[in-house]
Amino acid sequence: MTMVEKIVVVGCGAAGATAAMQARKFDRKVSIAILNTEPYSQYSRCGLPYTISGKVRAYEDLVLTPPESWAGMNIVARLGTTVTDIDGKARQLKYKGKDGTGTLEYDALIFATGARNADPPIKGLDKQRVYGIRTIGDAKALSVEATKAKNVVVIGGGVAGMETAEALHERGVHVTVVEFLSNVLLAMVDPDMAEIVEEHCRGQGLEILTSTAAQEIVGDTVPRTVRVVNRDSQQSREVPADAVVVSTGVRPVTELAQKMGVEIGSTRGIKTDERMMTNIADVYACGDCAENVDFITRKPMSMGLGTIAVRQGRVAGINAAGGDEKFPGIVGAKVTKIFGLEIASTGLSEELAKRFEIEVVKGSIKGSTKPPYYVGGKDLKIKTFFNKQTGKLVGGQIVGTEDVAMRLNVITMGIQNNIDATGLFDFENCYAPPVCDTWDPLVISADAARRRLKS
Amino acid sequence: MTMVEKIVVVGCGAAGATAAMQARKFDRKVSIAILNTEPYSQYSRCGLPYTISGKVRAYEDLVLTPPESWAGMNIVARLGTTVTDIDGKARQLKYKGKDGTGTLEYDALIFATGARNADPPIKGLDKQRVYGIRTIGDAKALSVEATKAKNVVVIGGGVAGMETAEALHERGVHVTVVEFLSNVLLAMVDPDMAEIVEEHCRGQGLEILTSTAAQEIVGDTVPRTVRVVNRDSQQSREVPADAVVVSTGVRPVTELAQKMGVEIGSTRGIKTDERMMTNIADVYACGDCAENVDFITRKPMSMGLGTIAVRQGRVAGINAAGGDEKFPGIVGAKVTKIFGLEIASTGLSEELAKRFEIEVVKGSIKGSTKPPYYVGGKDLKIKTFFNKQTGKLVGGQIVGTEDVAMRLNVITMGIQNNIDATGLFDFENCYAPPVCDTWDPLVISADAARRRLKS
Repeated sequence: MTMVEKIVVVGCGAAGATAAMQARKFDRKVSIAILNTEPYSQYSRCGLPYTISGKVRAYEDLVLTPPESWAGMNIVARLGTTVTDIDGKARQLKYKGKDGTGTLEYDALIFATGARNADPPIKGLDKQRVYGIRTIGDAKALSVEATKAKNVVVIGGGVAGMETAEALHERGVHVTVVEFLSNVLLAMVDPDMAEIVEEHCRGQGLEILTSTAAQEIVGDTVPRTVRVVNRDSQQSREVPADAVVVSTGVRPVTELAQKMGVEIGSTRGIKTDERMMTNIADVYACGDCAENVDFITRKPMSMGLGTIAVRQGRVAGINAAGGDEKFPGIVGAKVTKIFGLEIASTGLSEELAKRFEIEVVKGSIKGSTKPPYYVGGKDLKIKTFFNKQTGKLVGGQIVGTEDVAMRLNVITMGIQNNIDATGLFDFENCYAPPVCDTWDPLVISADAARRRLKS
Repeated sequence: MTMVEKIVVVGCGAAGATAAMQARKFDRKVSIAILNTEPYSQYSRCGLPYTISGKVRAYEDLVLTPPESWAGMNIVARLGTTVTDIDGKARQLKYKGKDGTGTLEYDALIFATGARNADPPIKGLDKQRVYGIRTIGDAKALSVEATKAKNVVVIGGGVAGMETAEALHERGVHVTVVEFLSNVLLAMVDPDMAEIVEEHCRGQGLEILTSTAAQEIVGDTVPRTVRVVNRDSQQSREVPADAVVVSTGVRPVTELAQKMGVEIGSTRGIKTDERMMTNIADVYACGDCAENVDFITRKPMSMGLGTIAVRQGRVAGINAAGGDEKFPGIVGAKVTKIFGLEIASTGLSEELAKRFEIEVVKGSIKGSTKPPYYVGGKDLKIKTFFNKQTGKLVGGQIVGTEDVAMRLNVITMGIQNNIDATGLFDFENCYAPPVCDTWDPLVISADAARRRLKS
């Protein structure tokens, strides 16, 4: 390993900012520079939809590391600055920004270039009043739309799409979500869980078209309608739209890395080892641009989650500065809350298990957040997944209006400790009538699975 | 092991009822009888305070196994019936009940005799309008008091005392809690956490006198005041009281067991092994009357928790019927909610660690339930405890107004899997702005402890 005197971090999102700060914590003397194409310093991307609804009061609130704070950490931050070329042999990079161009030398380099929207094959994406939901710019524009658009079509019923749809709906806009697959949120939960979400959202007045392909944004310079076709019936229709949000997934940003010979993995992310290092010595990657491994299967995995970004960023930053931290792999715990309904999942879903060719046994139950005799318990649906061959806990999903995320966290902790159904059944949850029951629904789901595993 | 054809369960609380039902599930043919001194079938004792406040609508709602349901399970239930003598050699017991006396033979016997109030050394306990809070009778009487008493003194600021104080306060009664120790809830949390609870409750109008001994319930046939003395200042005063609730802890009910030669442990409970069997073959004990081991230290432990009762009852019932289940030991996860504040603890507290002579390192932090930029996050205080010598997670405490119990459950799952501070730091919590932050406060507490463990 080279003696590290200069670290450069490319990208100042959650992963990059964390990497820079943790490198500084680890080594008070090493020189650190961080560059960001966006004019902003680290902000919470996940918070963007809530600036539209007002649950985040100001865009500035989203900025977790104010630009002026970098100097105090003795880190040079170049915002609004894009890295244009990297010479891996000379360990030197060129950048171009609002203050002109320049070069930087590095001993260790960290890619935290994030991801960008993967534009779907839809006509008319180049019109005005067509937005993504990935930057502060997007959120600002959608906040303005919330005051003037009557009808908005959100193309893509993933987490970001659904959260944006909720926010616009709460501002009084009539919103239609167009989802290509059979259900919304399928990257997160199984169809039966997604159906609960759809019913709940429709009950709130959100329109959701599933198994529906958006074909064209129709209009002159601005949208008038979105032409969609039902993939089952092949029936076509036009959905009125004054504005359109496109949220059909993202792609890791890897061009610079690729150009300098960094290996890209099967998930399109930058391949990294457990130290978050790429195939090139002293070159690291972390966050949405990086590929690491799935915790359970140890197979390639990348997942655009803030939790993963900061954890990988921390490991990359410390290691770039000469430390030796390890990233344990991606479990993939995630949660969202839409119209008061919390939806959470961790580990393998039915879909993921299939992809990894793991046969799973499920414990699927409907329960309540409180004992039956206590007024006000809320319905929960819980699924836990166990590897049929090994018996190990490999995943879980919960939908309900309270205590969903933290309950899911117990499953994740179980997965991270390789427990089996008996381990989850033996889980000693706490209990009090106003809070939860003696046998938590989690334990009951483990019991259901356990019986199936035995038979 | 004897061929088991007849099982008798003594006691029909959470432990006994669970034991009987699980024995039946395990063996469809074995003869099962269950006897209960109280005239009721299994009901939730923990739910009693909430019948006073109305959060449990009716006493009948608390009954989890209606009397008429036993016949359907082919279990003979004798309610309002007390076992008067047991002949361990003949495997025969005598009972006395509303239908007269009788004898029962058994191949396997399960003690689920629970606990009773341990009356403190206070004068005047025999007056009218002086109550415990352990039976449906107690709760019914206190519901009546709620309509007529102006002032009630609750002696004992443990979980049951505090929950009852809250319920009476909510019914408009002026309530004073008298706690002998320096703080309320010390069997659950450390003093610094208890202080948060006291401040919160006082803010709601509850009077709490700590370090205060109740000496006498003053009055003729009914209370007029309670004479108390401050243990620090030795100052005495009389607190007005139309009625008094005594909730100063409980003792395992073990007389019958002792008489037949069953060994009693150092915690005063019936000593059991990991199969919940006593020193006498085919005689089991479970629930509040039983002593088992602490999960972490494997030292003797008994804890009057509903969660432990049903888990031990299950193991005892199945094993009595010829199965081979094991009880993993008591972690001691517990929670209560008072005036909207959730208080939860698991594993060792400072007090318990001292008793077990384990030196602990703490990770104590104040955090929020949501990211800083999202409107409406609530304060949390979290403490995690690690064994200084082994580095293992041995306990945790959380106080806050949301997401407390389920967050604590993650700590318990960690304890049950012998994780250390790095294991908790590597915990991959789920994240979304309306729900929780990228680094959960749990993870941050682990980080704080980890640094102390290293230094």
